[in-house]
Amino acid sequence: MRDFTFYNPTRVEFGKDKERAIGSYMAPYGVKKALLVYGSERIKTSGLYDRVAKSLGENGIDFVTLGGIKSNPVVSKAREGVRIAKEESVDAVLAVGGGSVLDTAKVIAAGAVYDGDVWDLCSYKKYPDAALKIFDILTLSATGSEMNASAVITNEETTEKFGFSSPAAFPTVSVINPELQESVTNEYLAYSAVDILSHCMDLYFTASYIPGITANYIENMIKTVIRTTNALLKNPGDYEARSEFAWAAAQALNRTTFAGVEGNRYDSHLIEHSLSALYDVPHGAGLSVVYPAWMNWHYSQNPTRYERFARQIFDQQTAEAGIEALTHWFVSIGAPVKLEQLHITQDKIEEIAAHIYRTIEMARMQPLYPKETIIELLNRM
Amino acid sequence: MRDFTFYNPTRVEFGKDKERAIGSYMAPYGVKKALLVYGSERIKTSGLYDRVAKSLGENGIDFVTLGGIKSNPVVSKAREGVRIAKEESVDAVLAVGGGSVLDTAKVIAAGAVYDGDVWDLCSYKKYPDAALKIFDILTLSATGSEMNASAVITNEETTEKFGFSSPAAFPTVSVINPELQESVTNEYLAYSAVDILSHCMDLYFTASYIPGITANYIENMIKTVIRTTNALLKNPGDYEARSEFAWAAAQALNRTTFAGVEGNRYDSHLIEHSLSALYDVPHGAGLSVVYPAWMNWHYSQNPTRYERFARQIFDQQTAEAGIEALTHWFVSIGAPVKLEQLHITQDKIEEIAAHIYRTIEMARMQPLYPKETIIELLNRM
Repeated sequence: MRDFTFYNPTRVEFGKDKERAIGSYMAPYGVKKALLVYGSERIKTSGLYDRVAKSLGENGIDFVTLGGIKSNPVVSKAREGVRIAKEESVDAVLAVGGGSVLDTAKVIAAGAVYDGDVWDLCSYKKYPDAALKIFDILTLSATGSEMNASAVITNEETTEKFGFSSPAAFPTVSVINPELQESVTNEYLAYSAVDILSHCMDLYFTASYIPGITANYIENMIKTVIRTTNALLKNPGDYEARSEFAWAAAQALNRTTFAGVEGNRYDSHLIEHSLSALYDVPHGAGLSVVYPAWMNWHYSQNPTRYERFARQIFDQQTAEAGIEALTHWFVSIGAPVKLEQLHITQDKIEEIAAHIYRTIEMARMQPLYPKETIIELLNRM
Repeated sequence: MRDFTFYNPTRVEFGKDKERAIGSYMAPYGVKKALLVYGSERIKTSGLYDRVAKSLGENGIDFVTLGGIKSNPVVSKAREGVRIAKEESVDAVLAVGGGSVLDTAKVIAAGAVYDGDVWDLCSYKKYPDAALKIFDILTLSATGSEMNASAVITNEETTEKFGFSSPAAFPTVSVINPELQESVTNEYLAYSAVDILSHCMDLYFTASYIPGITANYIENMIKTVIRTTNALLKNPGDYEARSEFAWAAAQALNRTTFAGVEGNRYDSHLIEHSLSALYDVPHGAGLSVVYPAWMNWHYSQNPTRYERFARQIFDQQTAEAGIEALTHWFVSIGAPVKLEQLHITQDKIEEIAAHIYRTIEMARMQPLYPKETIIELLNRM
């Protein structure tokens, strides 16, 4: 194994009704007043909001709110949250929602203890080395943000989709109650599944070296997501499948997949972030379009890994057959595999490629491929 | 999945030469003076002691020492450590050694902030809710103590082998440099392998319910340990195998194996602790004697799990064939499988059974089986 550091101090409270105890999870950290961040008003009709408010009240925690966080969350909302957090002197941020809400909460938590514009912290201008305490009640498992130190957010004025990763952004306690995810639509279940798989596969396919123990771990996450997604599309009330899906999402990006790995990159995420930043498509939908084209172009660079993937995941003997099986699976769960399904036309390809290259420059990354390759890849999508 | 809490704040610094930075890992926590706990004086001839002392010095950390910790560590040494820690006002304990040294360090760390006898904390009299900061440089991977909140120690006056589990006992930083383990003898490698497997198998075989994602995770640890032990017996210098073995040991008892599991017990550990407490046999050697007899007696209670084990681990079709394959594997790596190999004669069986029952009472556990069953089991060993 290559040298690594593993660190993940987030406490996960996993299971039924756990959100009813959220106040008791927060109070021991001295939280007196929180900013509750959420997405749609559905949490009020579902009763979730009331359960949270009750538990906070019982534990002597006052709170103010910021609702209306959308998928592909935007920095203007985070700025609004930072303003409220500062004005109201909150000492914690509580996200109630999916990855977009949680990432916004992380950005707010970092911005609340920073004097400048919060976008500085997301655009590599200033490292966010401190933040308010972050707590969350997860209502959609996909991004893995509930058990990691990262946040991604879009500046809608510049269409930049950036973010940060800092130990200060680990949630202190994440509540994962799979029952809260039963109302997720099949469409978003599919996008979530693709997102989780991509967290596994970006690393699995690009790494120049993966130790056996870590490769097996990643394959376990991939197989679990495929198995449980199939089960949930048949029966959304399948709690066993729902809970394994949720735990796989958290484990897929809690850093265990990186243990001892060398040379991994984030190709599909890099390309997809430009799609969702420019055209506001769901992240998972963008990823399922990027993946088949990217794999077909990329597999000759790491044929042994792709052959192993085919064998382990789909019981197929060749890299090509494995890619085909995954693409078929995407189609079978209703995930798009072509740009036109996202209503993105071929004349946008130059614009997308330019956006990807701008991101690479801003993030001071090594260019993955020449721009012509990016264009060729996009043409295949 | 059943409800669970996952929490593991230990930072693992894994890889070559990492012990050279130990002072820099400790200094940010305000450590000014540490108690360095170790086993044999070999760490001085090997140069490890000097490297540690140098790094501590470079980071302004003073230290005092306590050497001579043995396998099956004893509370008298921990008492000595507590006395030194208090007299010298140390603010951290640094273990340099294997699980016995680390467990002693944990007991000292808890005892140093407790006014009474440290054995109170180990014998269920007083819960250890606080401790000095614990750091370690691991030289033998087996117990998993480097990434968990538990410690086990023997009171040599009463032959009680007890311990505690408390969040205060998580190491703050654990250094795992697999190279430091290259000098482990084949004998102790085998015992360590059995110990790690038993951490996986106690849970795997006794749990009434294990979700698929967790069962696969456990199987990955078991397969990794078997594969890498075979490789290391052939070539002790195989760094890849050594590092995967070490990471499997840490992951086997870092609480991930418990995620969503119901009804697990610690049968083999409970029985073995009496063997090592009474006759000072190596823990892993005791376990490899306990396991075949226990499995042959137990498998009818959970046949599906044993069949899965046989299939997944040894490509065998029946529970019996799986147990036989594991027993053969123990023999093949030089682990004992009969009490007589530990020089424990049949006339001790009543004494052992009585000891096991005393432990059950002291720990206020539910009796696993009637005492006659324990005796029958011991007779089969």
